[in-house]
Amino acid sequence: MEFKILNQIESPADCRKLDIKELSTLCQEIREYMIECCATNPGHLGASLGCVELSVALHYVLNTPNDKIVWDVGHQAYAHKIITGRREAFRRNRMKDGLSGFPKMEESPYDSFGAGHASTSVSAALGLATAARLEGKDTKVVAVLGDGAFTGGLAYEGINNAGASKADIIVILNDNHIAIDKNVGAMHNYLLKLTTSATYNKARHRIWNFLGNNRLRRYVKKALSSIKNFFFRHGTVFEGLGFRYFGVIDGNNIEDLIRMLNKIKNLKGPKLLHISTLKGKGYEPAEQNQSVWHAPGQFDVETGERISKSGAPLKYQNIFGQTIVKLAEQNPNIVGITPAMLSGGQLSDLMAVYPERTFDVGIAEEHAVTFSAGLAAGGMLPFCNIYSSFMQRSLDQVIHDVALQNLKVIFTIDRAGLVGEDGATHHGAYDLAYLRFIPNMTIMAPINEVDMQDMLYSATLPEYTGAIAIRYPRGSCVGMQLPEQFKKIAIGKAVKLTQGEKIAVLSIGTIGNQVAKAIEMAKKEGITPSHYDMRFLKPIDTEAIEEAAANHSYILTVEDGSVIGGLYSAVCEVVTEKKVGCKVHGLGIPDSFIEQGTVREQLQECGIDAEGILKALKSIF
Amino acid sequence: MEFKILNQIESPADCRKLDIKELSTLCQEIREYMIECCATNPGHLGASLGCVELSVALHYVLNTPNDKIVWDVGHQAYAHKIITGRREAFRRNRMKDGLSGFPKMEESPYDSFGAGHASTSVSAALGLATAARLEGKDTKVVAVLGDGAFTGGLAYEGINNAGASKADIIVILNDNHIAIDKNVGAMHNYLLKLTTSATYNKARHRIWNFLGNNRLRRYVKKALSSIKNFFFRHGTVFEGLGFRYFGVIDGNNIEDLIRMLNKIKNLKGPKLLHISTLKGKGYEPAEQNQSVWHAPGQFDVETGERISKSGAPLKYQNIFGQTIVKLAEQNPNIVGITPAMLSGGQLSDLMAVYPERTFDVGIAEEHAVTFSAGLAAGGMLPFCNIYSSFMQRSLDQVIHDVALQNLKVIFTIDRAGLVGEDGATHHGAYDLAYLRFIPNMTIMAPINEVDMQDMLYSATLPEYTGAIAIRYPRGSCVGMQLPEQFKKIAIGKAVKLTQGEKIAVLSIGTIGNQVAKAIEMAKKEGITPSHYDMRFLKPIDTEAIEEAAANHSYILTVEDGSVIGGLYSAVCEVVTEKKVGCKVHGLGIPDSFIEQGTVREQLQECGIDAEGILKALKSIF
Repeated sequence: MEFKILNQIESPADCRKLDIKELSTLCQEIREYMIECCATNPGHLGASLGCVELSVALHYVLNTPNDKIVWDVGHQAYAHKIITGRREAFRRNRMKDGLSGFPKMEESPYDSFGAGHASTSVSAALGLATAARLEGKDTKVVAVLGDGAFTGGLAYEGINNAGASKADIIVILNDNHIAIDKNVGAMHNYLLKLTTSATYNKARHRIWNFLGNNRLRRYVKKALSSIKNFFFRHGTVFEGLGFRYFGVIDGNNIEDLIRMLNKIKNLKGPKLLHISTLKGKGYEPAEQNQSVWHAPGQFDVETGERISKSGAPLKYQNIFGQTIVKLAEQNPNIVGITPAMLSGGQLSDLMAVYPERTFDVGIAEEHAVTFSAGLAAGGMLPFCNIYSSFMQRSLDQVIHDVALQNLKVIFTIDRAGLVGEDGATHHGAYDLAYLRFIPNMTIMAPINEVDMQDMLYSATLPEYTGAIAIRYPRGSCVGMQLPEQFKKIAIGKAVKLTQGEKIAVLSIGTIGNQVAKAIEMAKKEGITPSHYDMRFLKPIDTEAIEEAAANHSYILTVEDGSVIGGLYSAVCEVVTEKKVGCKVHGLGIPDSFIEQGTVREQLQECGIDAEGILKALKSIF
Repeated sequence: MEFKILNQIESPADCRKLDIKELSTLCQEIREYMIECCATNPGHLGASLGCVELSVALHYVLNTPNDKIVWDVGHQAYAHKIITGRREAFRRNRMKDGLSGFPKMEESPYDSFGAGHASTSVSAALGLATAARLEGKDTKVVAVLGDGAFTGGLAYEGINNAGASKADIIVILNDNHIAIDKNVGAMHNYLLKLTTSATYNKARHRIWNFLGNNRLRRYVKKALSSIKNFFFRHGTVFEGLGFRYFGVIDGNNIEDLIRMLNKIKNLKGPKLLHISTLKGKGYEPAEQNQSVWHAPGQFDVETGERISKSGAPLKYQNIFGQTIVKLAEQNPNIVGITPAMLSGGQLSDLMAVYPERTFDVGIAEEHAVTFSAGLAAGGMLPFCNIYSSFMQRSLDQVIHDVALQNLKVIFTIDRAGLVGEDGATHHGAYDLAYLRFIPNMTIMAPINEVDMQDMLYSATLPEYTGAIAIRYPRGSCVGMQLPEQFKKIAIGKAVKLTQGEKIAVLSIGTIGNQVAKAIEMAKKEGITPSHYDMRFLKPIDTEAIEEAAANHSYILTVEDGSVIGGLYSAVCEVVTEKKVGCKVHGLGIPDSFIEQGTVREQLQECGIDAEGILKALKSIF
């Protein structure tokens, strides 16, 4: 494909030389380029397709990089990346040593603030604007956040502070009426009303001009005025919170956007521009099925057919979905809660069968946990399904609202460990460490799908009390036959998988399969370590550790979490307390942030793939 | 004092037998009793004084404990406790084995959900209401939250979900126009306008009736109508978010409250009742100086004079306040941020000198951190001053917005360790554990005020990069002479305070003073351990630990944080990695929640007062 204009754009300055017609063509070319790249190198296509005009308009109107754009989450920032000197680099989007899938400060001066998690942009933009004011700089700062991110409490905290400040910031509410799944909540309903109301106003205007001045017009006027009372004054929620409200305008119309941005960019104080965009805009399959095309994987550009591997084994997400449905059939108190990861976490399975017992609370991790605690206090048995990385948002709620009150809430922690292409912001690296110190907490991780369903089942039994965490990774199971019957997992008991000598490998969770592979390979070189699947981080099986320490001269711990604070720390504590004379070495995610790449590359980087574990075994031996 | 009616109240059922006049007398008596108790046994008097009528009215109108009241934070729940069977027990409020200063589920069936941290009530209430609905129970659920708690993002997340649900909950916004310090933010301004507007409407109504129907009335009508446009429709922000809005009514008028609650309690769907109360109501000194009387300590009931210890040494809070002012004088990039703990954390010192460089963002810990990150990205050097327990709210922001971008933000973590009377919800027990696993993080804790000011100074130097945490407890310093000159603290270096034998005690922070005392006592019994003040948890001084392990057969770690995850874990890791043959035992906050009491009692309970440490030394020896 030929990109006549796009190929000339080395920086936003080049955009500013174009006329409106050329800008439209540029948008068209960006879109085609983005689709072409994402077809072979998967990415977050949907949101970025909707945001092409906004990206171009912002860089056209603002004096970037002196002026600052803060992208919330960053799923929508591909066009921004492409026109800020990263056009060719975009071919290696989300790849190892390539571009990050999100804005990243060290990648470009045009990335004013990094992102990945939602709802941070207003707070960050207020910080940048305040710094500029204190330094006496004339810097315009724009935060762009979607309606999905607007359900997060942090966005409100930012709005609440920005609205009371005199900061000259523009918040662009990029309303595409959808998060990854259907957006939820009162704010979403409110935004929808604003959009409907705007459409209505436009229609009214047209009818008005058409009518001329006569009796009919007076009649229509009367009718319309009463319809109008059905609506409300525009943007009063935002006006109430100290923002001047502008909108709703069509965010896929570059002319409208440029006109509006020019109109408001020099106005003083906090402003909110509400634009309506279409997720997937310009590519029909993506427009038609927005949830799937949020991140579609590889696809055929011509047909829009997604290229999926056939015969792939079940994912841990499927095990979660089908097991919670089975358990919910037996126990009417079981309910499911997800903060905006309904399909990603497969709680959609429960939603399909028991919609009234399934709650998608939107991007609101803190609420998800405290709401679960409230449900538990009211006699329910909540499964709070949450991604490990996002659960960092609810540490306080887990401690203060669940564990401290010893309420029984089962946390099914998805995307634990290394997540691949999403990179540093999305790894589930810390859950083992940040849950281990919480009293009244049970923490377990299955090595395979059979243990996974048994753990989900066991957690519902009365002997399991308080806060319970079951962590598991994104992706495919081992491929075992699933037994019909659930089996009870004994609390705090490890399983010895291999009896060997000299070295004992202690692992937790699915990374144990890499250990098993490494041990197979080691055998060929005459190294025969023992292997314990710890199953539980808390309560930790001290007997197993003592046994391992007594019968081996070296313990190697392996976990796909931060090597600090999790299994490694727990084992060191037991060894130094109870038994002296056994060295301990820990493999896991090191004390640094692991950038994007495939999971395989990341495992390798951390030295916790089979080869890395083998290497460690050999060096110890 | 005689409490004729109050003494008859053993449960809310007894309140329901009273007539309005008696209820008024009851409120008066509760107030007097509360003042009497708090004068000798300090507590959170101000908010609870303002909330007497509301507490009585709620229990009068609702069928508690079947109906549920969820108190946010819980500072305001004293009257609630007093009339729900805990009148006499209230004399031991906040004492060891006495009442918790906050609602607590295990304390009473009338405490539907525990609290301590802010902004949780709407989410919890929605959970309780949803559980009741699923169980087919007719339960009314009321959340009571203050305007202070309404700045927290979690409250918004709760509102956003409740507003879109059909839950029959009542949210009572108890607006006393102040948090601990002056409340801030756009929502606060909005609530103020609503109150002003209500007062204006009342006045208008009076003028209207006074005028009769004549030309003057028509003239006034015209004038008022334009004034009215200055205001806005009532409660539109809440109506926009799916709530029916009622108010503003006088929350210190028991009759008005009962009438309104009866009116709305059977209405379907989410309702918000906005009431205006006076913090400190009914006790003049508390009404006059609301910040101080939030938690006044002991006082003389007659004179209202607060009883303070004279000649008390400086607090660590004072060291923070005076040092940041000195540093800010030298470095114009230094700014200070606090989430609603301006006077408690003594950032008020900076506010007094550099108001434009000091930011109280309200109860909004997540925003406080991301805003700080934005300021840092804009070239400022932010000191983010935050209580350890509340910082649990911003773990994700510390990881994702600060550390991952390697931005330099200095976190001054106040109320680290055991906090005494506030009890389990407020200890700074986990910061060492939840910060240690974060890359790009430096964590230190001073043993005394001289180290404290040197650490604050050193953190500003260029060799200190990334996220930096300095943790220190509530309360008095050691009482040292403060040198004029700051001294640089070498990164990651421990200090050997005592050279001894057999046992090496490794401590971090001010708990080191208890260790020093214990060693003095131990000497008399012929035990002479070494003592290392580690100063840094990260980077940890591995050389010092190796030296300790090489020269002693036992290491005892002492910290006033969770024994899991902090110093103890770090030391165990080093010992098992580098040196075998030295046992390690850890003292710290055990794996359970420590209830209210004095700090001394709590140190004793954890075995980390001098006597406890001595005991450990003896048992090892």
